[in-house]
Amino acid sequence: MKKKTDAFTPRPEHHFTFGLWTVGNRGGDPFGEPVRPPLPPVRIVHKLAELGAYGVNLHDNDLVPSAASAKERDRIVREFKAALKDTGMRVPMATTNLFSDPVFRDGAFTSHDARVRSYALQKTMAAIDLGVELGASTYVFWGGREGLETNAGKDPRAALGWFRDALNFLCEYVRAHQYDLRFALEAKPNEPRGDIFLPTTGHMLAFIYTLDHPEMVGLNPEVAHEQMAGLDFSHAVAQALEAGKLFHIDLNGQQPGRFDQDLRFGSDNPKAAFFLVKLLEDARWPGMRHFDSHPYRTEDEDGVWDFARGSMRTYLVLKDKAERFDRDPDIQGILGELRARGAGGERAVYSAERAAALKAERFDLAALRAQGCAYEKLDQLTMELLLGVR
Amino acid sequence: MKKKTDAFTPRPEHHFTFGLWTVGNRGGDPFGEPVRPPLPPVRIVHKLAELGAYGVNLHDNDLVPSAASAKERDRIVREFKAALKDTGMRVPMATTNLFSDPVFRDGAFTSHDARVRSYALQKTMAAIDLGVELGASTYVFWGGREGLETNAGKDPRAALGWFRDALNFLCEYVRAHQYDLRFALEAKPNEPRGDIFLPTTGHMLAFIYTLDHPEMVGLNPEVAHEQMAGLDFSHAVAQALEAGKLFHIDLNGQQPGRFDQDLRFGSDNPKAAFFLVKLLEDARWPGMRHFDSHPYRTEDEDGVWDFARGSMRTYLVLKDKAERFDRDPDIQGILGELRARGAGGERAVYSAERAAALKAERFDLAALRAQGCAYEKLDQLTMELLLGVR
Amino acid sequence: MKKKTDAFTPRPEHHFTFGLWTVGNRGGDPFGEPVRPPLPPVRIVHKLAELGAYGVNLHDNDLVPSAASAKERDRIVREFKAALKDTGMRVPMATTNLFSDPVFRDGAFTSHDARVRSYALQKTMAAIDLGVELGASTYVFWGGREGLETNAGKDPRAALGWFRDALNFLCEYVRAHQYDLRFALEAKPNEPRGDIFLPTTGHMLAFIYTLDHPEMVGLNPEVAHEQMAGLDFSHAVAQALEAGKLFHIDLNGQQPGRFDQDLRFGSDNPKAAFFLVKLLEDARWPGMRHFDSHPYRTEDEDGVWDFARGSMRTYLVLKDKAERFDRDPDIQGILGELRARGAGGERAVYSAERAAALKAERFDLAALRAQGCAYEKLDQLTMELLLGVR
Amino acid sequence: MKKKTDAFTPRPEHHFTFGLWTVGNRGGDPFGEPVRPPLPPVRIVHKLAELGAYGVNLHDNDLVPSAASAKERDRIVREFKAALKDTGMRVPMATTNLFSDPVFRDGAFTSHDARVRSYALQKTMAAIDLGVELGASTYVFWGGREGLETNAGKDPRAALGWFRDALNFLCEYVRAHQYDLRFALEAKPNEPRGDIFLPTTGHMLAFIYTLDHPEMVGLNPEVAHEQMAGLDFSHAVAQALEAGKLFHIDLNGQQPGRFDQDLRFGSDNPKAAFFLVKLLEDARWPGMRHFDSHPYRTEDEDGVWDFARGSMRTYLVLKDKAERFDRDPDIQGILGELRARGAGGERAVYSAERAAALKAERFDLAALRAQGCAYEKLDQLTMELLLGVR
Repeated sequence: MKKKTDAFTPRPEHHFTFGLWTVGNRGGDPFGEPVRPPLPPVRIVHKLAELGAYGVNLHDNDLVPSAASAKERDRIVREFKAALKDTGMRVPMATTNLFSDPVFRDGAFTSHDARVRSYALQKTMAAIDLGVELGASTYVFWGGREGLETNAGKDPRAALGWFRDALNFLCEYVRAHQYDLRFALEAKPNEPRGDIFLPTTGHMLAFIYTLDHPEMVGLNPEVAHEQMAGLDFSHAVAQALEAGKLFHIDLNGQQPGRFDQDLRFGSDNPKAAFFLVKLLEDARWPGMRHFDSHPYRTEDEDGVWDFARGSMRTYLVLKDKAERFDRDPDIQGILGELRARGAGGERAVYSAERAAALKAERFDLAALRAQGCAYEKLDQLTMELLLGVR
Repeated sequence: MKKKTDAFTPRPEHHFTFGLWTVGNRGGDPFGEPVRPPLPPVRIVHKLAELGAYGVNLHDNDLVPSAASAKERDRIVREFKAALKDTGMRVPMATTNLFSDPVFRDGAFTSHDARVRSYALQKTMAAIDLGVELGASTYVFWGGREGLETNAGKDPRAALGWFRDALNFLCEYVRAHQYDLRFALEAKPNEPRGDIFLPTTGHMLAFIYTLDHPEMVGLNPEVAHEQMAGLDFSHAVAQALEAGKLFHIDLNGQQPGRFDQDLRFGSDNPKAAFFLVKLLEDARWPGMRHFDSHPYRTEDEDGVWDFARGSMRTYLVLKDKAERFDRDPDIQGILGELRARGAGGERAVYSAERAAALKAERFDLAALRAQGCAYEKLDQLTMELLLGVR
Repeated sequence: MKKKTDAFTPRPEHHFTFGLWTVGNRGGDPFGEPVRPPLPPVRIVHKLAELGAYGVNLHDNDLVPSAASAKERDRIVREFKAALKDTGMRVPMATTNLFSDPVFRDGAFTSHDARVRSYALQKTMAAIDLGVELGASTYVFWGGREGLETNAGKDPRAALGWFRDALNFLCEYVRAHQYDLRFALEAKPNEPRGDIFLPTTGHMLAFIYTLDHPEMVGLNPEVAHEQMAGLDFSHAVAQALEAGKLFHIDLNGQQPGRFDQDLRFGSDNPKAAFFLVKLLEDARWPGMRHFDSHPYRTEDEDGVWDFARGSMRTYLVLKDKAERFDRDPDIQGILGELRARGAGGERAVYSAERAAALKAERFDLAALRAQGCAYEKLDQLTMELLLGVR
Repeated sequence: MKKKTDAFTPRPEHHFTFGLWTVGNRGGDPFGEPVRPPLPPVRIVHKLAELGAYGVNLHDNDLVPSAASAKERDRIVREFKAALKDTGMRVPMATTNLFSDPVFRDGAFTSHDARVRSYALQKTMAAIDLGVELGASTYVFWGGREGLETNAGKDPRAALGWFRDALNFLCEYVRAHQYDLRFALEAKPNEPRGDIFLPTTGHMLAFIYTLDHPEMVGLNPEVAHEQMAGLDFSHAVAQALEAGKLFHIDLNGQQPGRFDQDLRFGSDNPKAAFFLVKLLEDARWPGMRHFDSHPYRTEDEDGVWDFARGSMRTYLVLKDKAERFDRDPDIQGILGELRARGAGGERAVYSAERAAALKAERFDLAALRAQGCAYEKLDQLTMELLLGVR
């Protein structure tokens, strides 16, 4: 937490990004008023640059208030771009706010009202233009209002159809403009709606395969959103990686089975965070490490920057531990023994001969049944590595 | 619950099925011994036929104990087929037990040990043969042990690769034998493993698109498994239906955020059950209504059959209510008004002209923002219909 | 939902109350702006009276804005009292807002800062005076900010000590003023804090026994707060009733394991709501049936009143079903048989002779082990009664 | 994990205990057969002694099978006592198995059947005698079957009454025999029953105050049971400590919102485990550190002992970190500043003068509202301490 640098001091090449809405969060919640004054976007850019971040991301209305005139809009964007230029900061990702305005109370792309669906498209096209103008190459969709409180209200199949139409439309819009932009879809199970459609990274990934241009569309998994449902986040990210669909990621923290906490990355459960970092680093995933979280409501502005610093430091600490894990002889010894079992590795590829041979094979089931996995030892070694005592 | 028939008396044309393992469940649990004596499969067939079921489903070892000789196996199968013939009962679905035997302690298709993976294939081929012999047209895969307690143990990407290899192999096996058989994959988030790979219907559906023969493979969503993670089950089923991938369904009940309860269908939350039945019936889905649940451990054999009767009756009661919902003038009036908003229904299809027009459109946002949805009224009407007071 | 009255039309003698903050909720949430204009308290009083409610409850700042001058305060209170008089409506319960103001960001009675703790006492004394002036006989404490995001911040034992000091102080305040007022404590596991101290009705009840005047202090259990943690609400209420500590109740709805939804009573799970109503009615509990919930954010003002109407109607529908349950011969037949088992009813009271006799007794364990409970049948009968088909 | 000793090597003075049923767990679960052969109790005693444990705890039937004759019982107990003597191991806690036998299918002390309730008393008296014979000073009650699947089955108030009668009876039994034995009650929200009465440490503590001899009865909180409901375990333990009711503790690990996992202590979330250890050590709590957990089902016997070793090591690692936390100048600096706010520490004690002064006090609310808590910094320092990088 000191000014002095150490092995865990973030630098731009680590590709850490924050949303304007994250460090800019003012601490309002369903039971309380904001506690912090607004932070101007230009100030955020300068401060994050100073702390070692690579870039900053935004919703359209984080930067340009919805009531702004065209002239104000241009001034705001101009000043923001100047700050980016001064600091070398980038805007790798942009997105649309389709959830705050009462007009979206029953959904944006999935509203019953065709005018609302049209307005959501209009707003998104403008926001895409803004994102591209700022240099974004990833465009995120989080459909915070695309859901229901009562299933009496809407057939979910109709909603999926409307949502697909919107994404197909916007893919064509990007193609028509030859924008160098990919879409990343973000799932969430609930809050603010009772239930949100396509509630997990899995449901969202499945949906992508039904689009007209699936190659343009990938995922933006968020730690908190998968952990709210009690699911292992690293498994979802592994599936996205394996499918070539990890386009962006939202790092934060969350206790299972409660409201959306958006805690500082790694502060909820360092073990889960460790396996996520290990997966991303083992895969040499080239994307942005984006923090979509916010400081506790107890904090003043100093706390905001402590929060930002801590998010990046913890990632780097865990990255270092992932490297240690990969070269720890006791850990790798156990893993090597497991991988070698049964001669290991041969893939099951069908042929009539192989099937016939398999059917006839006699397995030494008694021996296989008695064989332990040494996972208690392996996990204990991992915990001791994580706790810094080996 | 009486012998006399009424509008909710099940008949074979309702396509209700039970697993041998469901009514045959003996009431053992992690903290207690079995409380009921074994029910012979032949007796189950006769009793379920008497109650109005259409068929019975099974794991290989529900019918044929793993230690049975070939001769015993043939006798058991012969007697079972005779019972089917006597009663007219069918076996529409079969599956493999890849979770009870200690050999599968670290997974079947995703075990580190290549011999275990091979043995799982061998066991499944034999079980597919048995299923086809009994007339099954759907083959379910629930990978109860395909998971982990510690992420130190296995790279989830490797596990997904092994699982894919197994399914591709088995698809080819079915094709080679020209079996008229489709695969239905069943997801579960956890239990008995700490975390199970592909934990929801969504993750599983996404995975199917990566197989060699996705057209042969669909889903077997289970109420309890999606509700364990606090997700809306009817939304997952809607996504499966919309994707043409609802091949089978497991009906039961479950409170969110706890152990796998496998409660009698509709007994946990009749509102959620109602919207599921409404979805299946509105879609005129032709599949089996399979109950994958078991009687409370408090019950003796009478309780087992009360449980079976109640499962089917509740489905029929909710089906009747779904029909009432569709013709209730107050309910349909509200829905009609909602669907008509903004001229309704027109799909968003991209063209340069349409995009330009949309960008230029001026929306009466003040009016749209003030517009309520009457969902409280709609939901209250639905509740009163459900409670039988309208 | 019609103007015409029926058996489920609420009347004042049903003792239904609403908070000003419930029907007055404007629909803001962590991701969205308010959608409804403010409803003046006087209008709420008139409208709720028209709908058949008995009274209205309030936080100090629901009625008197924190910035109001003494003169404004008096005018507001005068007009409010006039509305009460005009309509015959009562204010049976009042409470303090100790959670919205940034001053309470780290707790009110449990803040590290002694000045904040003092200010919370000052604010509460003033609010108690206001409540008593309006006729309240129950005073609720919900400590929305009495918690933590990180356990590094505070020793929970210190927090419990501060909270106890505050309640002891305020009990003395009430006694010194000879107010006819009882305290009712309300627990919640989390939100808006990461974890809130004394998170369930059970923890809160235990705490009461450690106060200086436990006889003055009871509970205000809330459906949503217990169900957020996946606990059976009716069991908690039963414990409170059995201990003589059910002083007030907050009726609403909630899905387990998610953000605080405050749904319309009975709309989340009618079975759970039914057993709650049955418990309250069987116990002839004389307290207020207070609805602490709010309309969906999708609603306009019409939806607000539909929500209020529906809350009361559903309670009355379930009350009617509880009476049917108590006189249903099949249901009561099963229960009677269960209660008669083993000669039933005799209480276990220690004496040396009884202990010796018990030690020597030979039980027919085989028979007891074989005995089923008919709970599947009993539950199915209950479900059919609930669904209105028996 | 090596033979060589280090700062984290357990010794008897650390007061670590295990249940016979924990290391003796054979790996059976609802979906799978046991994977490990039985471990004889005498062998467990010797092996745990070798690993540095202080003692071993048991249910009656862990040691003496329910079918054992009096003679067999005596032989088993004699050999077990010899092993204790040889090793110096103690049996500080004993308990009754009131959940495995089908006779308890609907509860033991809360069964409808008076004979079952009597048999549960008989079994418990015998098990208390055995526990005292083995030297136990704490007797645990976990009522695994004291609950319901359907609330139609039983009035929870009747169940609480029966449970109270049983505890009062058994307290008198202990007093009559002048046993030096205290009772410790253990709560659990669900599993194996749908809902268990008195589901959390809080509900159980409240219940104790209603007993005839509350001074004899305290709590045995279990990490997993409180975390299943998503509650902060250390807060519950703090409440028990503050009330003088922490008589015993069950250490293990659990992810929220799922089946009872009984993971190795500290392996689920080291941060939560850290704050628990810190609380126990800061309080200088003198009780046993009992591990109520079991090895993964993937393990053979080697894994069992790795599990036991790891449980104790992790506790000692976290104890060391708790000591570091208490002397870390940056951490203590922040805490000191927080505690000093508002002159700190003065308790709120009522007097008419104090109340009058408080009412008149003018607070500098603007300053108090602006004040941050530095909790982000404090938590980040804690995480870095926990991860071993400061």
